[in-house]
Amino acid sequence: SGLVLVKNPHLDLMEEDILYHLDLGTKTHNLPAMFGDIKFVCVGGSPNRMRAFAQFMLRELGLAGDGEDVADICAGSDRYAMYRAGPVLSISHGMGIPSISIMLHELIKLLHHAKCRDVTIIRIGTSGGLGIEAGSVVITDTAVDSSFQPRFEQVVLDDVVVRSTELDKELAEELLACSREIPDFPTLIGHTMCTYDFYEGQGRLDGALCSFSSEKKLEYLRRAYDAGVRNIEMESTAFAALCGLCGLKGEFCRFHLL
Amino acid sequence: SGLVLVKNPHLDLMEEDILYHLDLGTKTHNLPAMFGDIKFVCVGGSPNRMRAFAQFMLRELGLAGDGEDVADICAGSDRYAMYRAGPVLSISHGMGIPSISIMLHELIKLLHHAKCRDVTIIRIGTSGGLGIEAGSVVITDTAVDSSFQPRFEQVVLDDVVVRSTELDKELAEELLACSREIPDFPTLIGHTMCTYDFYEGQGRLDGALCSFSSEKKLEYLRRAYDAGVRNIEMESTAFAALCGLCGLKGEFCRFHLL
Repeated sequence: SGLVLVKNPHLDLMEEDILYHLDLGTKTHNLPAMFGDIKFVCVGGSPNRMRAFAQFMLRELGLAGDGEDVADICAGSDRYAMYRAGPVLSISHGMGIPSISIMLHELIKLLHHAKCRDVTIIRIGTSGGLGIEAGSVVITDTAVDSSFQPRFEQVVLDDVVVRSTELDKELAEELLACSREIPDFPTLIGHTMCTYDFYEGQGRLDGALCSFSSEKKLEYLRRAYDAGVRNIEMESTAFAALCGLCGLKGEFCRFHLL
Repeated sequence: SGLVLVKNPHLDLMEEDILYHLDLGTKTHNLPAMFGDIKFVCVGGSPNRMRAFAQFMLRELGLAGDGEDVADICAGSDRYAMYRAGPVLSISHGMGIPSISIMLHELIKLLHHAKCRDVTIIRIGTSGGLGIEAGSVVITDTAVDSSFQPRFEQVVLDDVVVRSTELDKELAEELLACSREIPDFPTLIGHTMCTYDFYEGQGRLDGALCSFSSEKKLEYLRRAYDAGVRNIEMESTAFAALCGLCGLKGEFCRFHLL
């Protein structure tokens, strides 16, 4: 049916669903009227960048009016920012798995309440590249954990639920085809490694509070490359797992900063 | 000596240390002049609340001028917000362990570069209480994980480093004594449980994308209470572990929202 699947029978029995961190709710807002026609959701860490992206989309879609001002739909909350450009939503998610996980929970319930159909969700932003040309875009086929395994371990109360982290291969190929229409736009498909930390988790010799050897770091990164990892960031496994759980067509594209 | 310990010998060999997510650096800013006299750092999730806290501190310390405007020291970054009120810094950290961990790495290096001495760091904010009166403040003696163990597992490259999560007992008692000077201010010392997720990790039947039984949830929360847990949130183990690692006197106080 193209609808979003929410495998929680309690949800439809509730009188009101408050999406606290988005400052939206089923009683306070007419979610189908506000969001029913959304077809694409783009998410990224920084609120300023997601605002700039919404302004860019408005221009690209020929929807920009006199000014280029977009209103933050979640202005009542300082946890996330959300902007709209035609059928495209642009939302920030902060940094790390717990932060993106709260946003995705509320976003997916929003799409469910709004009865959206055939929604594609794409994570855009920056990451650290591994053995690739600076300025390349990596489209993720599979997100992997720090042991290079395609899995996301979610603790539910005290049980560990293991979820798959494969992303939509067809969508990845479509995006790769788009990139080929643009000259000098190095793009590749590869695995993306997700860590729980920016400094120690990614072995930043210069930034961490503890010490480790550069030999160990190089040996680890070499193993990651051999396992197919082409970039490193902090949200991909949770993103892939939640998209998979709810039947959302999801993809991860990240620009490799130097 | 009261200085902050940074166990990374690379740090002092670097020509420049850029604290990216705070938009500060050792070459671009005179950190000892800007921060050398800081004695207290208060951290919390929301940027608006940490701004309000800085304004409150200015008034309490008799430092408020005509207006009550405080400037965001990290205005060039939209990752975190930082305000100053006399010897007190007030900083936001977003939601979840990875987000607070990036902020604490850069904050601790900032305190190190600024040669601050005898700094106390306190996490303030809200949490979910467990078997306690609504409106109570919980001062954490020990942060525990979802198995009620006093430990934080930090992945460093592919090694798992286990760190202790005990907080400063003396500081906890001091804060408890302060609370007793205020009438009708229910305050207690207890363990704080830290989860990686707000919905599934904390068993929110109404909000999660998957389903689980309310019996299982109650049984789990009962075990948590019996293990000494009095509130649940998403940053305490990483906070305690990093304070311990760097010799910072740290404490966690959270207000139990209904």
